[in-house]
Amino acid sequence: MNKFEEKTIDTEVIYKGKIVQLQVDSVTLPDGQTSKRELIKHPGAVAVIALTDEGKIVFVEQYRKALEKSIVEIPAGKLETGEKPEITALRELEEETGYTTDQLKLVTSFYTSPGFADELVHLYFTDQVKPLEQKVDLDEDEFVELQELTLQEAEQLALDQKIHDAKTAFALLYLKLRGETR
Amino acid sequence: MNKFEEKTIDTEVIYKGKIVQLQVDSVTLPDGQTSKRELIKHPGAVAVIALTDEGKIVFVEQYRKALEKSIVEIPAGKLETGEKPEITALRELEEETGYTTDQLKLVTSFYTSPGFADELVHLYFTDQVKPLEQKVDLDEDEFVELQELTLQEAEQLALDQKIHDAKTAFALLYLKLRGETR
Repeated sequence: MNKFEEKTIDTEVIYKGKIVQLQVDSVTLPDGQTSKRELIKHPGAVAVIALTDEGKIVFVEQYRKALEKSIVEIPAGKLETGEKPEITALRELEEETGYTTDQLKLVTSFYTSPGFADELVHLYFTDQVKPLEQKVDLDEDEFVELQELTLQEAEQLALDQKIHDAKTAFALLYLKLRGETR
Repeated sequence: MNKFEEKTIDTEVIYKGKIVQLQVDSVTLPDGQTSKRELIKHPGAVAVIALTDEGKIVFVEQYRKALEKSIVEIPAGKLETGEKPEITALRELEEETGYTTDQLKLVTSFYTSPGFADELVHLYFTDQVKPLEQKVDLDEDEFVELQELTLQEAEQLALDQKIHDAKTAFALLYLKLRGETR
């Protein structure tokens, strides 16, 4: 089942943060040799492909310290402990965009960086959104700006490297395929 | 330009590994408050969507310690310092699959986890591959198995959560869209 499995000899936890944990595992390789694996543990995340009544896609622009620049992404956020992904998805949609929905469909789930991290992103879709009557607060260290764009406008932002991340790139292909096949 | 920019007050490097560096930045937020950002520095990576003469997609199955399971992915690998991405892409294709090519087209580049990591994946496409006359060795701690699948077979593996990562999910949509629009 698990081809080329690597058995753990020892785990050294280097750092436990609010978002990531870094550990270095010593492992036995399939050929009996040993090696080290640098591993990031992450609680997982959600992202939402949301279409407005006008058929525009809902994005947020935010500064990403890891990249030292602001980029435009679909709404997303990390899972809280014990929280069901669809609850997180609704919460992030509401907090980041001011929209709500009673219809979220799971599109797929994927690991973002299986070579070193266990972060799993659950990706949802909705074309049934309505504005919240009362805005919900963002986290206190979170600053985002809503943008509603056509697929064509979004594809231009991708060419300009302003849309530049895996989940949003996937979302654009998903919408393109959906548009051309329905 | 960089909306909501966060200025660095201080950087604490926690760990410098072979693949990742973990640092915690203290930052000034747009509202003047301060916060901490846990950041993973990564050299970046490449991945290759490769089609054989029979139109099959070239995959590799490998064990991913971060996930504690083996999954099926398109060939990929991390950039060596100073190496051009298209050189890495060719090297990884040769090492992992035994195929070579003189035609690699850049499809797109995306950040895998912009919330905490700067890993940028450069994704290439080729439908011009031929078997290497002499196999090239993998890294000594790397074990992979070649699989050549139709798009339909690959989509079934995705449903079975055996294909389960962002770059490969993107690749399948890319090929589906390519097939339906050419």
